[in-house]
Amino acid sequence: MKKYTSIKDVISLPILVEEAIALKKNPFAFEQLGKRKVLGMLFFNPSLRTRLSTQKAALNLGMDVIVMNISNDGWVLEFEDGAVMENNGAEHVKEAAQVISQYCDVLAIRAFAELKNREEDYAEKVISSFVKFATVPVISLESATGHPLQALADAITIKEFQQKERPKVVLSWAPHPRALPQAVANSFVEFIKNTYAELVVTHPKGYELNNEIMEGVPVEYDQNKAFADADFIYAKNWSSYTEYGKILSTDKNWIITNAKMQLTNSAKFMHCLPVRRNVVVADEVLDSENSIVIPQANNRTYAAQIVLKKILENA
Amino acid sequence: MKKYTSIKDVISLPILVEEAIALKKNPFAFEQLGKRKVLGMLFFNPSLRTRLSTQKAALNLGMDVIVMNISNDGWVLEFEDGAVMENNGAEHVKEAAQVISQYCDVLAIRAFAELKNREEDYAEKVISSFVKFATVPVISLESATGHPLQALADAITIKEFQQKERPKVVLSWAPHPRALPQAVANSFVEFIKNTYAELVVTHPKGYELNNEIMEGVPVEYDQNKAFADADFIYAKNWSSYTEYGKILSTDKNWIITNAKMQLTNSAKFMHCLPVRRNVVVADEVLDSENSIVIPQANNRTYAAQIVLKKILENA
Amino acid sequence: MKKYTSIKDVISLPILVEEAIALKKNPFAFEQLGKRKVLGMLFFNPSLRTRLSTQKAALNLGMDVIVMNISNDGWVLEFEDGAVMENNGAEHVKEAAQVISQYCDVLAIRAFAELKNREEDYAEKVISSFVKFATVPVISLESATGHPLQALADAITIKEFQQKERPKVVLSWAPHPRALPQAVANSFVEFIKNTYAELVVTHPKGYELNNEIMEGVPVEYDQNKAFADADFIYAKNWSSYTEYGKILSTDKNWIITNAKMQLTNSAKFMHCLPVRRNVVVADEVLDSENSIVIPQANNRTYAAQIVLKKILENA
Repeated sequence: MKKYTSIKDVISLPILVEEAIALKKNPFAFEQLGKRKVLGMLFFNPSLRTRLSTQKAALNLGMDVIVMNISNDGWVLEFEDGAVMENNGAEHVKEAAQVISQYCDVLAIRAFAELKNREEDYAEKVISSFVKFATVPVISLESATGHPLQALADAITIKEFQQKERPKVVLSWAPHPRALPQAVANSFVEFIKNTYAELVVTHPKGYELNNEIMEGVPVEYDQNKAFADADFIYAKNWSSYTEYGKILSTDKNWIITNAKMQLTNSAKFMHCLPVRRNVVVADEVLDSENSIVIPQANNRTYAAQIVLKKILENA
Repeated sequence: MKKYTSIKDVISLPILVEEAIALKKNPFAFEQLGKRKVLGMLFFNPSLRTRLSTQKAALNLGMDVIVMNISNDGWVLEFEDGAVMENNGAEHVKEAAQVISQYCDVLAIRAFAELKNREEDYAEKVISSFVKFATVPVISLESATGHPLQALADAITIKEFQQKERPKVVLSWAPHPRALPQAVANSFVEFIKNTYAELVVTHPKGYELNNEIMEGVPVEYDQNKAFADADFIYAKNWSSYTEYGKILSTDKNWIITNAKMQLTNSAKFMHCLPVRRNVVVADEVLDSENSIVIPQANNRTYAAQIVLKKILENA
Repeated sequence: MKKYTSIKDVISLPILVEEAIALKKNPFAFEQLGKRKVLGMLFFNPSLRTRLSTQKAALNLGMDVIVMNISNDGWVLEFEDGAVMENNGAEHVKEAAQVISQYCDVLAIRAFAELKNREEDYAEKVISSFVKFATVPVISLESATGHPLQALADAITIKEFQQKERPKVVLSWAPHPRALPQAVANSFVEFIKNTYAELVVTHPKGYELNNEIMEGVPVEYDQNKAFADADFIYAKNWSSYTEYGKILSTDKNWIITNAKMQLTNSAKFMHCLPVRRNVVVADEVLDSENSIVIPQANNRTYAAQIVLKKILENA
């Protein structure tokens, strides 16, 4: 693997998932592989699971880790080509990416969508600039439009918990007080739609995701209908893609409750976390036996570790 | 040891102190014990000694350390059971504690008192929530009402410097421009009162500590009388427990000076640090030969290391 | 080496440069040297290259690293002797430096000039206080008036790229929207002036550097004349030393362009980074083959590593 910023970097998702599950059984088996190798982690935004699980994954492989909250600890970066840098930006990503590449063997970056300008966000200014200028492999720790490590952990989790060969997986929009990116939903759709699962997406009108990503995936605007016979319910809020970055609905009827879960085939409940209890999902669901959000979060370590392993082996 | 959040987690303080002193002589003797083990440190508040000494202690045992300033680097946590999370809290401690437990082998947490509501602070909302929901051992790096690693370092220091079998130890309140928690004073009393020392507490009226903690410990409101024949003077400011969180006195007469130290039996001077010079204690005392605040701070490493060792051995 | 805070700590710069270049060829050759040793890094100011390259250097030597953004993560430090600490300062550097020295084997500190009071900045309050009170070796990661690790990396880079025995090296002031310290310029002059290079400094009137540092170094106020036959152009902005901390000129004619580079002997272009593109230097120069800012930044690792190695060997 040369980099890991989207599903396009995955040759075979089923094989990658199998390899991650094998690694999980013996997480220290490759602790020589990362010796003398440094993972540099750059955060433009907050992170808990990603921050800790990726460090754990790197440590499991014997790597050293250098973490930097780049917005606070370093310089404001400029991304525009040809900019006359008289304002905020103190360092151009051209230099930053090349320089950091000399101190690290793998570079991992988190940079959320700003949700102001769809074209800019979907151009993936930050992560694509680092990919362009870095001279070491780049891993996305969630970019403006995707969260491929989360989606890989999700795929691993579905594989571990599925009871039938082709489970029905429902990605359900849920309400949230703040405007959130589409990144998690986008990557979940991209990773799950072409696998061993039947994927259905349900959301209120106006929350349609990017057409290209959704190609071949049915949308069901009636949440109850969507839940029928589902084996997995994946809840997630996102702001509107069409009216970009806007909150079009805060309809509390879309919260995931036990009543809705009873429409399913005793579905497992998933969420990427952090989750707002009793807004996105009721306590009764999250605290039920069918909730698998904790083992799902645990798989973040093995998603990151298999990606790091593939990248190190290619190096 | 299953956890370390108060004196109640200590089976025998004298034995623990002896073991810490033995460890100090050979700090790398157990560097295989922590191999492949991760200490996760979560800070809700600033920290210098605790941050550095606990990392050093973990490294001495061969552990890896992941540090997170959770308020800045992660998500605002919600602690209320059943909360409808429509406001600031983005993640419930139920999820956070369970999730982090999957990435770390030991969890260490600093969360100060807010000094607004005594019942809330003394319920130890943060640390007790982590203890409740975490699935790995939890260590307090100072909680709302206690600082047991500091108190253990204090006990080690008294053991090292005591000249007689039962020294007189005086905990003296001292003035400070800001309202501070009772945590250090509470733990010091709890750790020292039942040991080989005669403990006396001195403070202005209104600064009485929690009754239960003070049970069996004499209070002397006259600082000069308290200092008579003392072998150790431990200075510390705290805000009022009775008029909770308030500064009732800034009486400069309570500062520790050479004149007062001369009332003692050539007492050693202790303070947990950071200390405000010439407010809490005069330069002449802090810079004197009788000041042992620097070796006292050094013992923070061995307090943390013996606790981590006991926890790892039990794991 | 007992410490590394200025050129005065270097016995022979040519030998140190040669040793760094040798180390660069085999960076892991001394990875046993730093085992069980902790480098403590304290940042009072932002840092990218210094932060990452120094960590990388320490890891190459087998050291553990503890990083602390002291202004955010710890306590506000007081530096004045005899201060009555009733205001912001919560901990005196006397305690802080002694305490931290007990948790780390080497201490590295970044503390920029405040540019308010020349005498205070040139007294090097922060770094000299740590040198005074610390009981372990101190390394400057850029202090108020010097940046010796940068200057050592610069000397290594010139050595690697020089085509003749005594190249002409020109340090050129360049415009910048903010008032910057003289630290990089000062150390560059101190390190390069007595070596195998012919050093010339060029800047607008009013930007004269400290006399003592500049002793024996010619100033040429005509940038074009200075560039004639130059083998290296080192661009850097600094604020006025004489009218301390002021921006006296923003003359855009001082930007480094291709036209100016054509006056040189096909000079290599250097800058310590971060650099404001099209303000300090035109894209056409920075993106040209003659720009060596990226390998120059790479040498930050080996400058830090040879210094750490010398310090560890002396320990």
